Amino acid sequence: MLTHTVEEGALPNRFRTLWDQIAPIGRDERSGGYLRYALTEPELRLREWFRAQADERAMPVTEDGNGNLFAWWGDPEVGDAILTGSHFDSVPHGGAYDGPLGIVSAFLAVDELRAADVTPTRPVAVVAFVEEEGARFGVPCLGSRLLTGALEVERAAGLRDADGVSFAEALGARPAGARPELIGRFAAFVELHVEQGRALVERDAPVAVASAIWPHGRWRFDFTGEGNHAGTTRMADRRDPMLTYAFTVLAANKEARLRAAHATVGRVAVEPNATNAIPARVTGWLDARAAEPAALAALVEAVHGKVAERARRDGTQVTLTEESATPLVAFDGGLTDRLATLLDAPVLPTGAGHDAGVLAGHLPTAMLFVRNPTGVSHSPAESATDADCATGVTALARVLKELACR
Amino acid sequence: MLTHTVEEGALPNRFRTLWDQIAPIGRDERSGGYLRYALTEPELRLREWFRAQADERAMPVTEDGNGNLFAWWGDPEVGDAILTGSHFDSVPHGGAYDGPLGIVSAFLAVDELRAADVTPTRPVAVVAFVEEEGARFGVPCLGSRLLTGALEVERAAGLRDADGVSFAEALGARPAGARPELIGRFAAFVELHVEQGRALVERDAPVAVASAIWPHGRWRFDFTGEGNHAGTTRMADRRDPMLTYAFTVLAANKEARLRAAHATVGRVAVEPNATNAIPARVTGWLDARAAEPAALAALVEAVHGKVAERARRDGTQVTLTEESATPLVAFDGGLTDRLATLLDAPVLPTGAGHDAGVLAGHLPTAMLFVRNPTGVSHSPAESATDADCATGVTALARVLKELACR
Repeated sequence: MLTHTVEEGALPNRFRTLWDQIAPIGRDERSGGYLRYALTEPELRLREWFRAQADERAMPVTEDGNGNLFAWWGDPEVGDAILTGSHFDSVPHGGAYDGPLGIVSAFLAVDELRAADVTPTRPVAVVAFVEEEGARFGVPCLGSRLLTGALEVERAAGLRDADGVSFAEALGARPAGARPELIGRFAAFVELHVEQGRALVERDAPVAVASAIWPHGRWRFDFTGEGNHAGTTRMADRRDPMLTYAFTVLAANKEARLRAAHATVGRVAVEPNATNAIPARVTGWLDARAAEPAALAALVEAVHGKVAERARRDGTQVTLTEESATPLVAFDGGLTDRLATLLDAPVLPTGAGHDAGVLAGHLPTAMLFVRNPTGVSHSPAESATDADCATGVTALARVLKELACR
Repeated sequence: MLTHTVEEGALPNRFRTLWDQIAPIGRDERSGGYLRYALTEPELRLREWFRAQADERAMPVTEDGNGNLFAWWGDPEVGDAILTGSHFDSVPHGGAYDGPLGIVSAFLAVDELRAADVTPTRPVAVVAFVEEEGARFGVPCLGSRLLTGALEVERAAGLRDADGVSFAEALGARPAGARPELIGRFAAFVELHVEQGRALVERDAPVAVASAIWPHGRWRFDFTGEGNHAGTTRMADRRDPMLTYAFTVLAANKEARLRAAHATVGRVAVEPNATNAIPARVTGWLDARAAEPAALAALVEAVHGKVAERARRDGTQVTLTEESATPLVAFDGGLTDRLATLLDAPVLPTGAGHDAGVLAGHLPTAMLFVRNPTGVSHSPAESATDADCATGVTALARVLKELACR
C-alpha cells in the first residue's frame, strides 16, 4: 500500500511551486474560499495558466468546442490515448483542491515520467473540463455532458447565469455538442481528485481508487398548513407546516443513519417567514444518496411514509416531488482492480458526482482520491498535505506508465 | 350572557352598509387579504373615510401630532372623556377585521346611543391609531407608544420603511411625541377587536372581555456547525446545524403544549441554503407567550436546555439571544369586572399586543373581543358574521352608556 508518503524532497517542492502559482487566483480574502466560476475572470486566468503549462512541456492544446481544454503529450490524431485531468471551477467559497488538484497532478505526473525517461507508447492528454460544479449555469459536469452528448446543445447554449449571461455567450460560440470521434480517440480516463470525506484518514492511506459513484437525487417536500397569528392561535388549533418540516429533517437523518446512506436537508423556504406568524407554507429539499438504487429508493420511501403520517398529526399536507435522479455509476471493474493492485490502494465508493462519472458511460474510467485530513469538501476547510499531493502525483504517474507506456 | 346575537334587522344592515364602504380599500385581489400599511394610499383613504364619518355625525376631528386621529362627541377640552376605537392598518395580506372593526363599531355605537336618545355626561372620542401592526416601520403600536411617551420621538421619526421613507417623512412632520395633557383628558379606553382565536367559538358566545395580554418575547437561536458536502460526508462525521434547528422547532412546540403556553418558530435563515450542502449556520426565531412571566421564562429555559443538550449530540453550537420582551399587561380589574358583569360576557386573556396594552399603563383600559368563526388572524381567512359584529356594536354601546352616560 502507498502508506509511505513522499514526505520530503523534490516532488513536494515541485508540487508547491505549481500550486503557489494558482493559489491566489479567485481566492476570497474574507472566507479563504474560492470563487472560480466557469469562464469568469479567475477561471479564464486558470485556463491561461493551463496553456502556459502545456507550452512549457511542448504539449499542444486543443479545444473541443464545448469549453473543454486538452493538452497532448503525443499526437492528438493517433487515438488509443490515455486521458487524465479534472476541472478548475469551484462552488461558491469552495476549497482549493476540488478540481485543480487533478490538473496540477496530471502535469506533474507527465514531468515524473519524462524525468524517468519513460516514453509513452500511446498519447497522454491532460484535460480541463468546464463547469463541473454547475455553480454558474446550474448544470454540473456541463462540459463533459456536452462532449459525450448527455446534454443537448440547445439546452446548454441557453443556460443562463445569475446575471442573465448564457453559456453560449460566455463561451463565445454555440457549443459543438457531442464529439464521438474525439471520445473515440481515448482508451481510458483517470481523474485524480481530493477525497471528500475521511475514509482515507481512517485507513491511514494517502491514495484510494474509486469503485463507484452512489446513485443520488434531489426531492422537494412541499408542506402546506394554515398561516396564522403566533400569539393568539392555541397550540391545539394550529396546522403548522414548520413542525412537519422539522420532523422531516430529523426523520431523513435517522433513516440515512440506519441504512448507512446519506440524507441531507440543507435548503428551506418559508412563507411568510416572519417571527410572529405560523407559516402557511414550508418547502424543504432532500438530497439523498445510497450505495444501491434500491437502497436509495427505500430510504426516500421510508422518509416519505413517516412524514406523511406526521403530516396527518400536524393537520398539514405534504407533497413529494423528485427534482433530479442520477443513477449509479460503477467504474470499470477491470481497470479499477488493475489500478488498486498496481498501487496497493484501498477501493472506495463516493457520494459525489464527477466528470469521470459522465465519461464512465463511454470509455473505461477510473478515479484516484487523495487524502483530505479534514474530510471537508466544498468549503475553505478542504485540505491536503503537500506530501499526500506528491504521493498522488506518484500514483498517477504509475497509472499513466501502466496504461500508456507499455 | 350575550348569547342572543343580533341576527336580523336594522343594525346588521347598518353595519354592512358602513363595512361595504371600506371593504374594497387596500384589498389584494389575488390573496383576498389587505395591504393597508400606515400612511400609504389605502390607509390615507381610510383616514379620509374616518373624517367623513365624523363629519356626518358632527364630531370634530383632532390630531395628536403623532398620526393618531380623534373624533369627538362632546367638547374635546372638557376632560374625563371615554375613548374607544382601534386602527386601520393591516399586516401584509391581513384580514378585514383586525383594527377597522373597532373603529366602525365605535361610530355605530355612537349612532345607537343617539338613536336611543342617550346623552353622554362626559365626552366620547373615537380614535384611529396609526401603525398598530408595525408592518411598515417595524415598531408595533407606534402611534400609541408615541402618544404615551413609550417611544422616543427621535427614534420614531427615523424609522424607515422598505423604500427608505422615514416615519417623519410619511407623517409630513416630526412627531409630537408624548402628550400627557391629552392622555389626561381620558378617563378610560375601551378597544373592540375581532378575536384572534377560537375561544368564543368553543364558548358559543359572540363577545368577550379581555383580562390580560400575555407576556411575550422573541428569541433568536443561532446554530453553527460545519458546512460540508451533502454527498460525500458520512453521517457520523457531520456537524449539521439544521438537525439542531429541527429539534428546536419540535421541542418548542412540545414544551408549549405541556405548559398551555404558545411557542412558534416561524422564521429561519440558512447558510448557504443549498440542496447539496450541509449548512454551516442556521438561525431560527422563537416567538413565545404564556399567561405569566414566570411561566414564559420557564418555557424558554426548558426549550433552551433541551436544545443545548441536543447540540452536544449534533456536534453543533447554539447561542440564545433575547431580541424583545413585552411584559404582562393586566387590564384594569375593576373595569374588566364591571364590563363582564354588564355584558354577562366571558373574560379571556389574549396573546396578541394591542394599542390597549400600551394605554393600559396610563389609564383604565379594557378590550372587547368579537367572535371569529375561523379563529384565524393576520390572514384573509379571518372573519366575523354581520350578526356578531352587530352584537359587538350593541355591547360597545352598552359599555359607552355605562361609562359615559351616567
